[in-house]
Amino acid sequence: MKKINLNADMGEGFGMYSIGNDAAMLDIIGSANIACGYHAGDPLVMSGVTRAARDKGVSIGAHPAFPDLQGFGRRKMHLPLPELEAMMVYQIGALMAVAKSQGTKVTHVKPHGALNNMAAVDMDMSLAIARGIAAVDSSLIMLATAGSCLCKAGLELGLPTAGEIFADRTYDENGNLTPRSEPHAVIHDPEQSADQILSFVEEGKIITPSGKRIDTPIHSICVHGDTAEAVAIAHRVKERLEKAGFELVPLPRVMEA
Amino acid sequence: MKKINLNADMGEGFGMYSIGNDAAMLDIIGSANIACGYHAGDPLVMSGVTRAARDKGVSIGAHPAFPDLQGFGRRKMHLPLPELEAMMVYQIGALMAVAKSQGTKVTHVKPHGALNNMAAVDMDMSLAIARGIAAVDSSLIMLATAGSCLCKAGLELGLPTAGEIFADRTYDENGNLTPRSEPHAVIHDPEQSADQILSFVEEGKIITPSGKRIDTPIHSICVHGDTAEAVAIAHRVKERLEKAGFELVPLPRVMEA
Amino acid sequence: MKKINLNADMGEGFGMYSIGNDAAMLDIIGSANIACGYHAGDPLVMSGVTRAARDKGVSIGAHPAFPDLQGFGRRKMHLPLPELEAMMVYQIGALMAVAKSQGTKVTHVKPHGALNNMAAVDMDMSLAIARGIAAVDSSLIMLATAGSCLCKAGLELGLPTAGEIFADRTYDENGNLTPRSEPHAVIHDPEQSADQILSFVEEGKIITPSGKRIDTPIHSICVHGDTAEAVAIAHRVKERLEKAGFELVPLPRVMEA
Amino acid sequence: MKKINLNADMGEGFGMYSIGNDAAMLDIIGSANIACGYHAGDPLVMSGVTRAARDKGVSIGAHPAFPDLQGFGRRKMHLPLPELEAMMVYQIGALMAVAKSQGTKVTHVKPHGALNNMAAVDMDMSLAIARGIAAVDSSLIMLATAGSCLCKAGLELGLPTAGEIFADRTYDENGNLTPRSEPHAVIHDPEQSADQILSFVEEGKIITPSGKRIDTPIHSICVHGDTAEAVAIAHRVKERLEKAGFELVPLPRVMEA
Repeated sequence: MKKINLNADMGEGFGMYSIGNDAAMLDIIGSANIACGYHAGDPLVMSGVTRAARDKGVSIGAHPAFPDLQGFGRRKMHLPLPELEAMMVYQIGALMAVAKSQGTKVTHVKPHGALNNMAAVDMDMSLAIARGIAAVDSSLIMLATAGSCLCKAGLELGLPTAGEIFADRTYDENGNLTPRSEPHAVIHDPEQSADQILSFVEEGKIITPSGKRIDTPIHSICVHGDTAEAVAIAHRVKERLEKAGFELVPLPRVMEA
Repeated sequence: MKKINLNADMGEGFGMYSIGNDAAMLDIIGSANIACGYHAGDPLVMSGVTRAARDKGVSIGAHPAFPDLQGFGRRKMHLPLPELEAMMVYQIGALMAVAKSQGTKVTHVKPHGALNNMAAVDMDMSLAIARGIAAVDSSLIMLATAGSCLCKAGLELGLPTAGEIFADRTYDENGNLTPRSEPHAVIHDPEQSADQILSFVEEGKIITPSGKRIDTPIHSICVHGDTAEAVAIAHRVKERLEKAGFELVPLPRVMEA
Repeated sequence: MKKINLNADMGEGFGMYSIGNDAAMLDIIGSANIACGYHAGDPLVMSGVTRAARDKGVSIGAHPAFPDLQGFGRRKMHLPLPELEAMMVYQIGALMAVAKSQGTKVTHVKPHGALNNMAAVDMDMSLAIARGIAAVDSSLIMLATAGSCLCKAGLELGLPTAGEIFADRTYDENGNLTPRSEPHAVIHDPEQSADQILSFVEEGKIITPSGKRIDTPIHSICVHGDTAEAVAIAHRVKERLEKAGFELVPLPRVMEA
Repeated sequence: MKKINLNADMGEGFGMYSIGNDAAMLDIIGSANIACGYHAGDPLVMSGVTRAARDKGVSIGAHPAFPDLQGFGRRKMHLPLPELEAMMVYQIGALMAVAKSQGTKVTHVKPHGALNNMAAVDMDMSLAIARGIAAVDSSLIMLATAGSCLCKAGLELGLPTAGEIFADRTYDENGNLTPRSEPHAVIHDPEQSADQILSFVEEGKIITPSGKRIDTPIHSICVHGDTAEAVAIAHRVKERLEKAGFELVPLPRVMEA
């Protein structure tokens, strides 16, 4: 039976503020990417979502970001590489202790937002991120867009590295996400999303609009919980994968395979 | 040969800002209390001072604080206890990862500023802090004012607990620090400071102005590096202790004894 | 025709986060207390809500707070009075410029959360706040709990000073709000709320449970928009006041009377 | 008698932290660019330096920046233009109120650090900044690198616009600052600095290494106070300008001419 993982961003509230539907998503996903206080998340929010994930058997990942609460980590920032590396260490460590305090542990790291987007196409940034992860614990799984510089950097530094594809986005002829500025970049229909995901994971390839196959190791599918539509897509992707005979598991169990 | 420890606050810069004379103090002390990003310190500052401490054989402690950079952690804040506990976990974890990335480890925790002052006389706060420490690693040493609620809470939760006295402060008839608002609260003369410290550590007691002896386990002496005078006091205290036959060691080695 | 004002807190989002139902409340209230970036609010949020208030003819007030986004300004902090005064100036000035940029102006100031609660019973804090307001513009209206130290400080410094009562809270025998820790502190029924408000404003007195009358100038009624129940209460209070012949106006028009 | 202005960045401390030598510089300069809390500065720091500038007859300018205390506003950030505009309004307004509280007023605005560098070559950013300034007070002087997009945007929006040159930097064949990465980008010798400044201001042109003249209105000279060398350069530039018959005045007096 083939194993696959669903992951989602979690714990993105801050103080009085909350965002997303963590409770609903924890029933769907196998792995949670938990904000570490830089773009969202505070110690109490982190504790709560970590405990909830643990109770559901959902594996825990750090979701480090630029230090930018005001911009939710979505604004590009240019940091010296040693500072970027040190920020990874800091954020991952903070969540590791939170996880320890809740009787569980961090098993993967997935960069957030603009940090993820910038690093995906920047090998120097990706290596700084990978160095930060490896310096804390070289058994942590790097989770990033399949085929990105982040995956290459993870592999280069010997980290277990997992590639993800997106449930609600279309891909272009180069196997990259269609930019959000273009029509049809975002998928709104659960069935269309599930069709695409199944075709990709069954072949283990990204299939472009023209039918070209691009070899890309796929370990995980990123789903979202910020709208009712997103939750519905995540639900349907999960059902269709199970019907097709996939076992949905936490990320570390995919990597064992 | 009797062992004793000197500790000082370190790494209290932030971004472009620096404060204190970390380099000078690392030649004097056995243990560094390193700011964790809440009242001071950022990931790069933390990395730098942790590496420097490691290179000097100085043991590493977390110096967690209220989330108050603007007030340097010296303004009283009133937080719910679960939030306080979670903030301890977060800050200690962040520094543990930084230490791991520099090939060393955190061995003690000393609360900072207003957090320390409030907790010293508040058993509920002290227990929340001790729970936060124990939840991360129950072998971490709680370092706090000898006789304070923090020491009591550390002992109650089974943490190795170290009591500290202050090199540059006088004590009142109850064995408490003379409030800063009173004359003679602060000692400016290195010799007077060394005299007091030696009389305390040789008897293992705090001696009040009238000569009363108060039994208080003394494991460490807190020195400061923020003025030239403070550095001179720290220097002289160290010299006099060595001349009197004390071995100055990192905090974990005092606790082994 | 007797004039009265309804006020509510507004613009308490931050970055990606939003809170409360500003749009619904702007149809009910005459004056908005707008967060200034310390407990909530960022420049873009402030601009948006200021423009919306202007379009509805709702007068603009600054809602300054402790610098504590994580605690939403609800955690007690102890600041030196000169710093408190300077923080008032800073926050009020920031909103004045935002209002200017939207073709309108700030006409009142109402302290937020823990700052309001602490100052209400602390004359020194209240005077520091009043000095901060007067230093920026001595025609700004101080809006605060009727009978509080803040109102006394406003009057002492010659500021136009407006007293407010609360739509959804009961009062004790001393004319103070019943502490939230006690049963019946909060009113959940729109009719009960409207009954109390009408009895108070028609007599111009706070009426205690035993029927005692306490003379207190009442210029404004504070309503909330954070729950559907709160919006319903605000609606009903407005209807009942209008039926009873009150004219609901922006705060500056109450003060002219 | 020809008028010229010296300007410097001021008030760049934060909480316990201080940086630069504000006191020394206030005896040299005619105009101060005061940090507004985003890259540095807090309300108390802002009040203190504003009062000191007022006492010395030094005119007050706002020195708005990216929201990045950790990076001292020197890290490039990419913000939506409406947010950038709103941030200008917020920061300028905060300082205007501080100035009002100290009996003086803000008369110019000079963007800081990475914001300045990015906008200098980006007309859209420059226009957003200029709109933010104009929305608060269209009589505020835009102070920016002579010939930059910021100056063009200031002029386009009808702001009084002042061009500045740098005392301690060399210029390339295009009239731009030599990049810091190149040798000789920074001038360390007071005499060399004064020679360059005098040659530029006497002709009212930037003179390139090969002797080419580039017409650029020059109203002000930017000097620094962060090192003893910088203060010495500022001193010498001032002396040489006075000896050459220039009157050193606050920026508004240059603009009157």
